[in-house]
Amino acid sequence: MRVTPRLRNVLPLKTGSMKPSSALMERVRRPTMLSKLTSAEELAPLFKIGWSGFTGVGYPKTVPTAIANHIESNNLQADPSTKKKFNLFVGASVGPEVEDRWARLDMIARRYPHQVGKEIAKGINAGRIEFADKHLSMFPQDLVYGYYSLKKKHGDPRRPLDWAIVEATAITEDGWIVPGASVGATPEILQTAERIIVEVNTRIPNLEGLHDINQSFIPPYRQPYLIVRPEDRIGHTAIPIDPDRVVAIVESTQPDNTGSNAPENDESKAIARHLINFLSQEVEAGRLPPSLLPLQSGIGNVANSIIGGLADGPFESVQVWTEVLQDTFLRFFDSGKLEFATATSIRFSPEGFEHFYKNWATYKNRLLLRSQQVANSPEIIRRLGVIAMNTPLEVDIYAHANSTNAMGSRMLNGLGGSADFLRNAKLSIMHTPSARPTKTDPTGISCIVPFASHIDQTEHDLDVIVTEQGLADLRGLSPRERAPVIIKNCAHPDYRDMLMDYYERALHDCLKRGAGHEPHMLKNAFKMHLSLQDKGTMKIDKWD
Amino acid sequence: MRVTPRLRNVLPLKTGSMKPSSALMERVRRPTMLSKLTSAEELAPLFKIGWSGFTGVGYPKTVPTAIANHIESNNLQADPSTKKKFNLFVGASVGPEVEDRWARLDMIARRYPHQVGKEIAKGINAGRIEFADKHLSMFPQDLVYGYYSLKKKHGDPRRPLDWAIVEATAITEDGWIVPGASVGATPEILQTAERIIVEVNTRIPNLEGLHDINQSFIPPYRQPYLIVRPEDRIGHTAIPIDPDRVVAIVESTQPDNTGSNAPENDESKAIARHLINFLSQEVEAGRLPPSLLPLQSGIGNVANSIIGGLADGPFESVQVWTEVLQDTFLRFFDSGKLEFATATSIRFSPEGFEHFYKNWATYKNRLLLRSQQVANSPEIIRRLGVIAMNTPLEVDIYAHANSTNAMGSRMLNGLGGSADFLRNAKLSIMHTPSARPTKTDPTGISCIVPFASHIDQTEHDLDVIVTEQGLADLRGLSPRERAPVIIKNCAHPDYRDMLMDYYERALHDCLKRGAGHEPHMLKNAFKMHLSLQDKGTMKIDKWD
Repeated sequence: MRVTPRLRNVLPLKTGSMKPSSALMERVRRPTMLSKLTSAEELAPLFKIGWSGFTGVGYPKTVPTAIANHIESNNLQADPSTKKKFNLFVGASVGPEVEDRWARLDMIARRYPHQVGKEIAKGINAGRIEFADKHLSMFPQDLVYGYYSLKKKHGDPRRPLDWAIVEATAITEDGWIVPGASVGATPEILQTAERIIVEVNTRIPNLEGLHDINQSFIPPYRQPYLIVRPEDRIGHTAIPIDPDRVVAIVESTQPDNTGSNAPENDESKAIARHLINFLSQEVEAGRLPPSLLPLQSGIGNVANSIIGGLADGPFESVQVWTEVLQDTFLRFFDSGKLEFATATSIRFSPEGFEHFYKNWATYKNRLLLRSQQVANSPEIIRRLGVIAMNTPLEVDIYAHANSTNAMGSRMLNGLGGSADFLRNAKLSIMHTPSARPTKTDPTGISCIVPFASHIDQTEHDLDVIVTEQGLADLRGLSPRERAPVIIKNCAHPDYRDMLMDYYERALHDCLKRGAGHEPHMLKNAFKMHLSLQDKGTMKIDKWD
Repeated sequence: MRVTPRLRNVLPLKTGSMKPSSALMERVRRPTMLSKLTSAEELAPLFKIGWSGFTGVGYPKTVPTAIANHIESNNLQADPSTKKKFNLFVGASVGPEVEDRWARLDMIARRYPHQVGKEIAKGINAGRIEFADKHLSMFPQDLVYGYYSLKKKHGDPRRPLDWAIVEATAITEDGWIVPGASVGATPEILQTAERIIVEVNTRIPNLEGLHDINQSFIPPYRQPYLIVRPEDRIGHTAIPIDPDRVVAIVESTQPDNTGSNAPENDESKAIARHLINFLSQEVEAGRLPPSLLPLQSGIGNVANSIIGGLADGPFESVQVWTEVLQDTFLRFFDSGKLEFATATSIRFSPEGFEHFYKNWATYKNRLLLRSQQVANSPEIIRRLGVIAMNTPLEVDIYAHANSTNAMGSRMLNGLGGSADFLRNAKLSIMHTPSARPTKTDPTGISCIVPFASHIDQTEHDLDVIVTEQGLADLRGLSPRERAPVIIKNCAHPDYRDMLMDYYERALHDCLKRGAGHEPHMLKNAFKMHLSLQDKGTMKIDKWD
């Protein structure tokens, strides 16, 4: 491993060389890279740091774990003079054994632009971790623009990150990085880091050929992405880097630590039925071709039911342009109805990955992973006419949706790519159960509310809302037309009258003073939320 | 004029031919078109109707006026059996003498996706007119998709509009339409109308060569717009149409009925100073090139001050990629510092138009008008790295902005293209005075509020907020970091402590229950708005 003087000051590492395993020698085809081989335990980097990874796959496992071990075993966090805190930038979420553990050890000062895990969410909501969620299509671009390093005074201004730690499944003769099961923001993290550590994962197969990699450029005069079909390739199969910035190579044998996918239930199946029925009607009306248009589908049980439903459904030669693929896509592929899929990550369960790697030959030509800047590009999503389907926390009666903050304040996971897709899709669909349980009331939370307590998707972005109760087609409707349709078709029966009463009172009040375009009673807008906070249910007796 | 049997049923018109004026014969170069010449008075009640026009220019003037005259003079609106109501679709706003007059005569059932005028806003907020504002880049596309004619059962499904009435400054030999001072949604309105009426305006010069026209296609397999620089042409100089659908030609001699531009004041000048200072710092830091990146600037006095400031400012060879140009752009051109500008409309004052038409030769090669689908295209805005600057009604302490509904309910003009630009710009800037007067309090309305009473732009979209008090650079900040910066730098001194008190109490409450990512007190979120409603000022004594 090459150690620069500055690096030596912050890394408690021994110099020297290790003997590479034969598995590693097969994967790392550039000899000078092998000379940088070290063990994860040698590394404990600092400051601003970027990781590969997206939706819990393709992230570095060994080095972050070794850093956490080092910090824990030396009890560094107990003393302010030895306490280590990092600013952590990753395309989206990574495995809980690294991110959540870092959060538990209070090692994270700042985390952008997405996260998943109990401990990290706790740190954010307790005020210990600064977090800002950002459209996933924009995060890598903003990183390259220098928007996350406005105050950087020394070093190369084009390198906002001090460190990148990325997972590779191979390194080419040119020293280029072949990613694992996600691309995410890895190209831009590599592009903007002063020093790079590569974990070569020899447990996961070499995924060379699965990726389509292009670099980020800075305006003016950027060229469009010449993608007209989901299968179009515009880049390389590996990420070009400057090999001189690679300071260490580590062999890793840890698999992606994914759990199983959220199981379907009656609600998710009912939502899927409404949706597939709607899509069939759109085909019949001539507004969609018989093979639909490229689909985007989020993570979760509803997404599972929808994709599962499509595997048994009426549409042939379907294409997918999405952010992440979960297990049901394998079933969709295997049904013969899914022609081609592209995403920025594949987040299968361990069994899903096993099936996928075992049948690699049948999938590899029907699948492409791209950077999140391309997968979530508004340009391409709009142009291809994507059908986007995502789950919110709550939707209001005029079709504003909250994707991020419970009760307006408590962050769950972050915005992700929801707004990239929902703003630009040809059909922007949000699906949610109509109600959720609280400790004391099985329908204590209505997912249809008078006023969303946080707004990520606006009324101008959504075309369709669907719950297990039914589907509201909002296209072409004014706000006064939307509210009754959403309440009647989508709200849980326990809340239907309450919401209709809110709407009618608001309408009456607002029309009276000539302010009735989108009627609200501001004094009661959050009354259902306040009731939830005080009484454990959104059910209220009366509005006045 | 050719009259189809169906047309005869709805139009109280005489057949026969008129003699064209020599001015008209010069402009209409396709002879069969001249045979369709009629007078505006011959044309009246219609159904779903699209007009040309955008920001009060390039709209049809004579026929809509004649229809209104016909309805008024025959007192048709007094009797339900003769009452006429129209669904009116226009790219954006048109002149008050037509739109506002139609609203006053209660002739408008539905109006999409933007409007300007006292009478039409009154009709919308009184519940008489159904209105939905939509991203201006999406409206023409949704029209072509058939989203505004979901229930159309007969006729051609690809023609959602019964009628198009558009202004032209010439008709080519092929029968193609040369628009006036705006393109807007005219290509798609012509594409989707069953019957077309063209007003050829012989008062305005023939603007042939000013426009870059491309048609809308339907997915899949749409091609990207190959625009890399603001001056790149991708289309024709006129709008291709099927001449057989043209049922009438009318000569018009009415100018665009624009008023003067909003005058600058001390506040708008202070905002402009902060902004130009900020842009200079960005150039210095290497995050912007010395000639900046293509600018978008809205309408209003702040926009005037900014563009005026740039005309006297430090940047050379500036380019503009915007929605609409107002008078100060002429000054900017004349200063030699504006190299090229492209927009979807030019909304000059009458004096501005006079200056513009008189000096047509000097402007025509530095200016291009495109359809709003292209001018407001997320694809191009993001790729060019546009600097977007727009005015909201209010911004909240976490940088959500309300662009449309006062007190959450009363529609002003509509969303326009604000979100097309602010979501996708490289620098997304909102500028507003920190406070506005009410009848009883010169600073009775704070434009910085705890929770925006309507949200059109989310916290994920805005980079910079600026008022006459100062500028808040929000890039890379978490919500907890944003609030103090916005309050301290941007809020009016009358509201600074009040807002800081809200934030600190919310922070305390939310951290206590582990929900402090974006702290709010939902029970007090609209307390300032409610005080405005009850007492004519947002100033409140205490939060509890």
